[in-house]
Amino acid sequence: MLLDIKARGVYPIAPTPFHADGRVDFASIDRMTDFYREVGSTGMTVLGVMGEAPKLDGAEAVEVAARFVRRAEGLPVIVGVSAPGFAAMRGLARASMDAGAAGVMIAPPNTLRTDDQIAGYYRQAAEAIGEDVPFVVQDYPLNFSVVMTPGVIRRVIEENPSCVMLKHEDWPGLEKISALRAWEAEGAMRRVSILCGNGGLFLDFEVERGADAAMTGYAFPDMLVDVVRLQAEGRRDPAHDLFDAHLPLLRYEQQPGVGLAVRKYVMARRGIIASDAQRKPAQAMGAKAKAEVEYLLSRLARHDPRAGKLAG
Amino acid sequence: MLLDIKARGVYPIAPTPFHADGRVDFASIDRMTDFYREVGSTGMTVLGVMGEAPKLDGAEAVEVAARFVRRAEGLPVIVGVSAPGFAAMRGLARASMDAGAAGVMIAPPNTLRTDDQIAGYYRQAAEAIGEDVPFVVQDYPLNFSVVMTPGVIRRVIEENPSCVMLKHEDWPGLEKISALRAWEAEGAMRRVSILCGNGGLFLDFEVERGADAAMTGYAFPDMLVDVVRLQAEGRRDPAHDLFDAHLPLLRYEQQPGVGLAVRKYVMARRGIIASDAQRKPAQAMGAKAKAEVEYLLSRLARHDPRAGKLAG
Amino acid sequence: MLLDIKARGVYPIAPTPFHADGRVDFASIDRMTDFYREVGSTGMTVLGVMGEAPKLDGAEAVEVAARFVRRAEGLPVIVGVSAPGFAAMRGLARASMDAGAAGVMIAPPNTLRTDDQIAGYYRQAAEAIGEDVPFVVQDYPLNFSVVMTPGVIRRVIEENPSCVMLKHEDWPGLEKISALRAWEAEGAMRRVSILCGNGGLFLDFEVERGADAAMTGYAFPDMLVDVVRLQAEGRRDPAHDLFDAHLPLLRYEQQPGVGLAVRKYVMARRGIIASDAQRKPAQAMGAKAKAEVEYLLSRLARHDPRAGKLAG
Amino acid sequence: MLLDIKARGVYPIAPTPFHADGRVDFASIDRMTDFYREVGSTGMTVLGVMGEAPKLDGAEAVEVAARFVRRAEGLPVIVGVSAPGFAAMRGLARASMDAGAAGVMIAPPNTLRTDDQIAGYYRQAAEAIGEDVPFVVQDYPLNFSVVMTPGVIRRVIEENPSCVMLKHEDWPGLEKISALRAWEAEGAMRRVSILCGNGGLFLDFEVERGADAAMTGYAFPDMLVDVVRLQAEGRRDPAHDLFDAHLPLLRYEQQPGVGLAVRKYVMARRGIIASDAQRKPAQAMGAKAKAEVEYLLSRLARHDPRAGKLAG
Repeated sequence: MLLDIKARGVYPIAPTPFHADGRVDFASIDRMTDFYREVGSTGMTVLGVMGEAPKLDGAEAVEVAARFVRRAEGLPVIVGVSAPGFAAMRGLARASMDAGAAGVMIAPPNTLRTDDQIAGYYRQAAEAIGEDVPFVVQDYPLNFSVVMTPGVIRRVIEENPSCVMLKHEDWPGLEKISALRAWEAEGAMRRVSILCGNGGLFLDFEVERGADAAMTGYAFPDMLVDVVRLQAEGRRDPAHDLFDAHLPLLRYEQQPGVGLAVRKYVMARRGIIASDAQRKPAQAMGAKAKAEVEYLLSRLARHDPRAGKLAG
Repeated sequence: MLLDIKARGVYPIAPTPFHADGRVDFASIDRMTDFYREVGSTGMTVLGVMGEAPKLDGAEAVEVAARFVRRAEGLPVIVGVSAPGFAAMRGLARASMDAGAAGVMIAPPNTLRTDDQIAGYYRQAAEAIGEDVPFVVQDYPLNFSVVMTPGVIRRVIEENPSCVMLKHEDWPGLEKISALRAWEAEGAMRRVSILCGNGGLFLDFEVERGADAAMTGYAFPDMLVDVVRLQAEGRRDPAHDLFDAHLPLLRYEQQPGVGLAVRKYVMARRGIIASDAQRKPAQAMGAKAKAEVEYLLSRLARHDPRAGKLAG
Repeated sequence: MLLDIKARGVYPIAPTPFHADGRVDFASIDRMTDFYREVGSTGMTVLGVMGEAPKLDGAEAVEVAARFVRRAEGLPVIVGVSAPGFAAMRGLARASMDAGAAGVMIAPPNTLRTDDQIAGYYRQAAEAIGEDVPFVVQDYPLNFSVVMTPGVIRRVIEENPSCVMLKHEDWPGLEKISALRAWEAEGAMRRVSILCGNGGLFLDFEVERGADAAMTGYAFPDMLVDVVRLQAEGRRDPAHDLFDAHLPLLRYEQQPGVGLAVRKYVMARRGIIASDAQRKPAQAMGAKAKAEVEYLLSRLARHDPRAGKLAG
Repeated sequence: MLLDIKARGVYPIAPTPFHADGRVDFASIDRMTDFYREVGSTGMTVLGVMGEAPKLDGAEAVEVAARFVRRAEGLPVIVGVSAPGFAAMRGLARASMDAGAAGVMIAPPNTLRTDDQIAGYYRQAAEAIGEDVPFVVQDYPLNFSVVMTPGVIRRVIEENPSCVMLKHEDWPGLEKISALRAWEAEGAMRRVSILCGNGGLFLDFEVERGADAAMTGYAFPDMLVDVVRLQAEGRRDPAHDLFDAHLPLLRYEQQPGVGLAVRKYVMARRGIIASDAQRKPAQAMGAKAKAEVEYLLSRLARHDPRAGKLAG
């Protein structure tokens, strides 16, 4: 089933699990995929920035994407296909869609500056992958150094019918959601799905501003699912209570660079993946950082039983 | 009294208060300075990034710095003197020191790239302001796009005897504190004071890593003082409890761009300054943002009576 | 007389001459101003990027600008007023205009990214300096890291009636001139003067594309004047012959960083200024570089008698 | 035969020739390779920045590299293997070496800032491709936004025995060559080959400073060969005369972005490749630009018979 503009809920950004020797750990892909489904995710995204995608070669990328898709058993899988050129992007996009992916995600190269450059890039990318492939535009200035105004996002959406979703991770970003949803309400822009990233750091308010929820890799996606559900049920205070209980750890995981190590460490602690190994280049956690994360988990356990299970 | 390497505690980053018509609000400078002293700050920093310093002309900057110094009555005041050239930097530095400032803070221009460029810049700056003026090196890559390794910070410290403090606001930054303190312990680097910024987002762990506390402008500096005191007393859990209660608001205030509007809004709500006016160019808070901040304040009031006083 | 959209010819970018001890050399300002007038310049620009403007403090900048204006005796002088904030920009702009300047030049801060940011910046700057002050928008991506499409330049021009000139130094830039002139011909944009910088590296074709000539600081502005005159007379081949004879040296002077040292060295060799001293931070020429410039001058002397006079 | 530190002469940067429909034009690869050999090149470099390498997918890249190698019949071929990750880099490097390449060239990713990051990257890259593979470090700040001091280049060379060459294209760069050669003379650095790029814009002086000549793609590599030969024979003035005659066109071709279109246009005019087609994204030459290039060729024909053959 193809991704469309009605997509909502939590799409975890899946890390790519590795064995200690650097080989892809396919068994952990299966376990993680099962976990995402069981906790109520409505889809998932693989080979994103935090999926160590650039560390895979072309053949590995296709194999990893295909493994997720197969195990997801119908849960929509979005595949990151960002690449330095359109030939490689097209290759991965077509192979992923052939394997059953629901759509692809495209980040802008960090050399883009002007509105025209951004819009031109997405037109060419959409043409390169084929206009039958639904795609997600990723707006993540902190990481890509590409700044997209609401106006240029609208332009990308209007110029490309196959654009069905915005992965929103500008910082700050709340006003951007409001601006886009206001245009949509006025009929000045067609609707797309908006899922938010940035580690979930503002998810509590993002859903209140009109986001369709989250696409991010925080090691407790089950919490993200619960917050979204509580908000949907109109239970604002409990939603914030749960979110706030996680915020100290979530903030810790959301650090650039070392954040992926934290994420994999907690996911391995939870048994979702077998090992926290990363491929090079990688930033590792030192002993102090591990102790800090353990302390945060122990504090979290007072509020969330899922963290409690980890306590020694 | 001159700033030295033993400085510790909380140095709030003071915003520059304006009247609605853009004139500097000197009465609010006095009130804010009194407030900082009364809540237990050990110093303060003015004309920093969040002090809208570039929006003042040269004469105004000197006048603002002098007013803070006079009212501080001996509490050490650090003056931000970053400027596009050394003539202007020297002018503001000498005038501030003549007015009684304790030292100055120097940010690197965002065009610096290599280690040699960074070290060379600080050597020239130290010479320009005069080597009798104690200075703070500001390490804030997110804002300045200048990346300083621990090694280059050590080099700046070793090459400039008048460098007495690091304003640490790298992100992530915990390992950097540990690396510098380890060198100091090994005798591989002389000691300097380390005060942390970044809105206080990691203050809970920064003091545990060896920072001498905080230099940041969060609208509840009294909380920062309390966290530092609790940590000094060895009361780790209560320190984290208090910090965590503030984290949802603190994170909200720490957003780039709009964060200053949030900070001034809360400070005006608390009566510390008369108005949340900024000079142009400025980002304002919309109605939704204000409602979000009020919601965060009302939630905070359950844990911290200081926020409770604000409830309508 | 105020600068307007009919400005044309060569406006040399004047360096700021210093004595060896760093004081401004006002006598050389006079001599240089006389030289510019005598060789047929139609105006001049002071306190630009290559005028070491950031190395002056506020009072010095006003004094330097005023000295040029007084000596220029009616030749229009444009003053660079780029500053980190609008208060300082306004101060220098008003003081310069009061002293008799013809207009001011404004470079974008290197943090601007989107079209909206660029347009917004110039609207605020125009308001800050006062809409009675004619200004030049400077488009120099190599130096400022701000990329302006023809569309955003048009927007700045259309939104600000006091914008009368584009200082064009994009690289490549020929198509940009053609695009803007085509819009003007179609009535899709009002006319402004376009003077080209970039050291003059493409002046030979820029005037053919519709530029009103040059605003740049090459040490032989007399050559620039002659090339422009020959082109205006329809003598294309002689214009290119003269330009090509200078190109080896011009290219050498146009190197970033060290280029200003080369320029001041040649200007001092020509007797236009007394010394090639720069204020810190400065890049100096080594012995090999000086020998290379002397070799280039000796080769140039075969084609241009002005260089011949310098031969030992 | 493997590339080593004694490499010298002209290594043209080969463009990748395409048919109008975007397929690789292998016949033109053969013709171009023959041409390079016949005019006296001592090697060649393929899949560089100007070789449109990112527009090829992995399989195509290997095929293109192999075709050049086969046709070169022993002339050393360097293959650009820059990639967003080490898995892809290793794949292309091993395949190219298996096909008979002499070595590989590695550009730094544009996210590197500090000296430690640059040195660390090259250590990891050298390990990834295998330390039996000779590699070239590419220093091209204008294009990659990575600034390498002479010190960090020395560090890369000292830490990686398999680094045999510097592709030097800093701007300005003459002092860098002198600094490295001085260290080598003092025994403070082991020797590597230095070949210069930047379109050849300073080749006249680079060889005088100690470069082993050029690695660049100017459409008249035969001129580059002649200049190098004349300099080697001690005929300085004729070397500069020939170089200067080409400088107007060389400068035109060296424009970022559109420069590749100019280069392919002239190479097609010379019959070296069949078509000036580029893959998307590409900048094309307009009618005015073509007329300007034709004018430059006609002027060049007065000095260089090779250009004369092109005159209509």
